[in-house]
Amino acid sequence: MRQHTLPADIERTSMQIISEELSQQKIELAPENAAVVRRVIHTTADFEYAHTLRFTQNAVQYGVDSLKRGNTIVTDTNMALAGISKPSLAALDATAQCFMADPQVAATAKRQGTTRAVASMQYAAQVCPNAIFAVGNAPTALLALCDLLEQNVLRPALVIAVPVGFVNVVESKEKVFSACLARNIPCIAAMGRKGGSTVAAAICNALLYTATGRLDPAARGWQG
Amino acid sequence: MRQHTLPADIERTSMQIISEELSQQKIELAPENAAVVRRVIHTTADFEYAHTLRFTQNAVQYGVDSLKRGNTIVTDTNMALAGISKPSLAALDATAQCFMADPQVAATAKRQGTTRAVASMQYAAQVCPNAIFAVGNAPTALLALCDLLEQNVLRPALVIAVPVGFVNVVESKEKVFSACLARNIPCIAAMGRKGGSTVAAAICNALLYTATGRLDPAARGWQG
Repeated sequence: MRQHTLPADIERTSMQIISEELSQQKIELAPENAAVVRRVIHTTADFEYAHTLRFTQNAVQYGVDSLKRGNTIVTDTNMALAGISKPSLAALDATAQCFMADPQVAATAKRQGTTRAVASMQYAAQVCPNAIFAVGNAPTALLALCDLLEQNVLRPALVIAVPVGFVNVVESKEKVFSACLARNIPCIAAMGRKGGSTVAAAICNALLYTATGRLDPAARGWQG
Repeated sequence: MRQHTLPADIERTSMQIISEELSQQKIELAPENAAVVRRVIHTTADFEYAHTLRFTQNAVQYGVDSLKRGNTIVTDTNMALAGISKPSLAALDATAQCFMADPQVAATAKRQGTTRAVASMQYAAQVCPNAIFAVGNAPTALLALCDLLEQNVLRPALVIAVPVGFVNVVESKEKVFSACLARNIPCIAAMGRKGGSTVAAAICNALLYTATGRLDPAARGWQG
């Protein structure tokens, strides 16, 4: 059986290729956002994210600091939750949760005739209103967040707004980004149609790796 | 609080938009593969998959038939596993499993100095050599599958080869597609760099929805 390359080597080489292609395309990333943008490209093989990811000022730093203080990440899908690095969370005494499968959330959704995605955000607003909210799937979850922001019942440490899709997705991301901007709430959004649970998890992991001091291969010197 | 559109309506409208844009782009999908291609585009908002998804003859039908007989889907990540429709699996008495977090797999990987992705495929080859193998993350898992095919210890009902990335990814997908073709093993692959756990789950779900008779919105008449 052949020798298999180790994941750390693959990641280092991948990040090197990403740097080279960004450079060929004359794309310069803002240093404070580079770790997030590079990890999203690493996760999707899609350089469009270098153009579509939008950040409120210092959003990455706010997210990192919040995780260093052991904050909770709330996701809108169990899939995004599954993609978030558990060793990194543990190293920071941080946690990640998804309330989509919570029986109480299902009951509320049924009673109110709404979606579980919406009900799960409303529930999270009660139990952890200062969490990092990472939405990779449901635009309805983002619109629910907007409502909760307007009602002043939610004050997230960071909103990660990256649902994917064709209906209400573009609009919901623009709306939540504006709502965050108006309230000085840090926000990272993938404008346009693209995004997804893997993108949500990749952004969380970029923040976690920065918070734990796990070096981005880009910082290891092979770039210069 | 505003009224939120229900997921089924969003999906129907999304599929309608996908059909319209495929038509505008003069892309005609082979009818036997259309449900899979459309669901991948629905999951990624990326029309490139209309060109990059490749199918061996009747691969979709083989996958559907296999699930109707209650086969197991083996994934290379817990994230892909999390994205597969559990109600659809239950309706067919089918199952989905990921062995990445299995203690025995971790021990084998450590002993052999290989990755857990490779060890998990080797383990799966022992416990369910006729499963559907869905690889959305690790090219090393695909190369391990190629080895196991060559050793004749594996006879999958279907291989779903859709890892994403920059190193060994393009080559591993081409290699496994050829290996399957040579052995008359059904294969669905996303050629090129793109893919991922969401794509793997989307393909599995397209097969599951077809197998359970859950109508693709495209079949509901709004298209004609």
